[in-house]
Amino acid sequence: MSKLLIVGTVAFDAIETPFGKTDKILGGAATYIGLSASNFNIDSAVVSVVGEDFPDNYLDLLKVNHIDIKGIEVVKGGKTFFWSGKYHNDLNTRDTLDTQLNVLADFKPVVPEDYKDAEYVMLGNLHPLVQLSVLEQVNNPKLVVLDTMNFWMDNTLEDLKKVIAKVDVITINDEEARQLSGEHSLVKAARIIENMGPEYVVIKKGEHGALLFNKEQVFFAPALPLEEVFDPTGAGDTFAGGFIGYLARTGDISFENMKSAIIYGSNLASFCVEKFGTERMQDLSNEEVSERLYQFKKLTQFETQLD
Amino acid sequence: MSKLLIVGTVAFDAIETPFGKTDKILGGAATYIGLSASNFNIDSAVVSVVGEDFPDNYLDLLKVNHIDIKGIEVVKGGKTFFWSGKYHNDLNTRDTLDTQLNVLADFKPVVPEDYKDAEYVMLGNLHPLVQLSVLEQVNNPKLVVLDTMNFWMDNTLEDLKKVIAKVDVITINDEEARQLSGEHSLVKAARIIENMGPEYVVIKKGEHGALLFNKEQVFFAPALPLEEVFDPTGAGDTFAGGFIGYLARTGDISFENMKSAIIYGSNLASFCVEKFGTERMQDLSNEEVSERLYQFKKLTQFETQLD
Repeated sequence: MSKLLIVGTVAFDAIETPFGKTDKILGGAATYIGLSASNFNIDSAVVSVVGEDFPDNYLDLLKVNHIDIKGIEVVKGGKTFFWSGKYHNDLNTRDTLDTQLNVLADFKPVVPEDYKDAEYVMLGNLHPLVQLSVLEQVNNPKLVVLDTMNFWMDNTLEDLKKVIAKVDVITINDEEARQLSGEHSLVKAARIIENMGPEYVVIKKGEHGALLFNKEQVFFAPALPLEEVFDPTGAGDTFAGGFIGYLARTGDISFENMKSAIIYGSNLASFCVEKFGTERMQDLSNEEVSERLYQFKKLTQFETQLD
Repeated sequence: MSKLLIVGTVAFDAIETPFGKTDKILGGAATYIGLSASNFNIDSAVVSVVGEDFPDNYLDLLKVNHIDIKGIEVVKGGKTFFWSGKYHNDLNTRDTLDTQLNVLADFKPVVPEDYKDAEYVMLGNLHPLVQLSVLEQVNNPKLVVLDTMNFWMDNTLEDLKKVIAKVDVITINDEEARQLSGEHSLVKAARIIENMGPEYVVIKKGEHGALLFNKEQVFFAPALPLEEVFDPTGAGDTFAGGFIGYLARTGDISFENMKSAIIYGSNLASFCVEKFGTERMQDLSNEEVSERLYQFKKLTQFETQLD
């Protein structure tokens, strides 16, 4: 059985959407990635940091989903990373209302001994130097996937480029791909980003789906058309967790299999947005995921009557 | 062999994009629809109107592509409809610089006698009362497809609703679907529009592809990721022409076959945007269309190792 190592935030979020608002609830990139990947029954561990204020039942929630949490440092007297945001009416854009780094400010990640040989490594959104530190602690993984965002492009671009040079796959959104490459065309942007290091470039377009690039090859996975998106928080992380979870489960990192991996990423992300925070991801059944895979096939597969 | 009747503008366009600008060139919804549908070697005829200033070689271009033009009225002393537009840098939005209705202002469409029994009718973008008049002249067609735009929603909504009530398929873009339905969610919008009459609703999202709705069913066709979009003019009409052309050629109006039809629509539209105006559509070969269909399959078709 392959092992998946995940680094990223485990955090409190407070979210406001047109449909309501939450107090501090469970959030963080590693949380969403871990819950999403847990649908593939693989061995996984999270490396992260929380404060003493972080509730045990949140950690239990990860454990119940078979995520190893011994790599989550609990800082005595520390406070957990907190993010608060408000989505606009179209749910495509949001304002950050508050960001409190707290224990994340001095985070030194320590990879658990039994995950140094993890075959699959997911570098969730975090400071590039933290991501680099994790990479330096693992032995020759089979596949490293990097997720990042514009904040690091704006503030720590040189460090970010060092990470980008070392990974196999990068997942970013369309605007970030344009920012990083300086090209508006996503086809051109992907080619430039490939030249920075990653063999595979995944460009997430939110409700417009996701593109997977590798040299001259390209694959597209749509987002499932939903009646209502309730809360987009964590959708990108859930997508990444589904992507790498499926690859770790199947053990096949060919381009053909990555096609299915981004379909699974889109599949799981389509659940994530149906409820606030991680709520929908907590009780997801294999049957629901299988049923939705069938919907994705009906949505995208066709047979022509001419040639 | 099925017959396809097309009504729409045959016009002069002057186009400016970030890549250059044109003088008055051949344009118009019916022109693009006709050229696109001509790739399926079906019998087709255009009902439209032009002025005496319209060059013979433009009409010859339609004839060479086996489009019957006897339904195109040439008004003595009249001037042809003229549209001029300038695209913004992202090519997703444009400003209309000039619109001269000219002979279109008093257009009374006359369906040629031998096309009154056309099985397929494409109502291209025009005044809804002109579209209605065409519908009143045909005998019980197998499939009627309507294309329209926000201009008619803004100015002649009641007339437009009368046409919408009489057609089988409507093709509009995402913003128009939201405007017509009052719903932001495209899934909800499609359901409301179905209740206005059409059994099938096609929502065009430009570079983000197109959705086909029918009751509880939905299918998605992506746009082909292109290095560069040169000129988007006519892409929506070319899409519609490919859609109905494929259906007329195969004679199968099931939902399953409409899936392939919107793939063909996307296929042909992906050529249209590669050059200014109709230039790319004029010399398109069957081999090129087949080759691009193969690209669409590689772009969208997948096989999972888990179910």
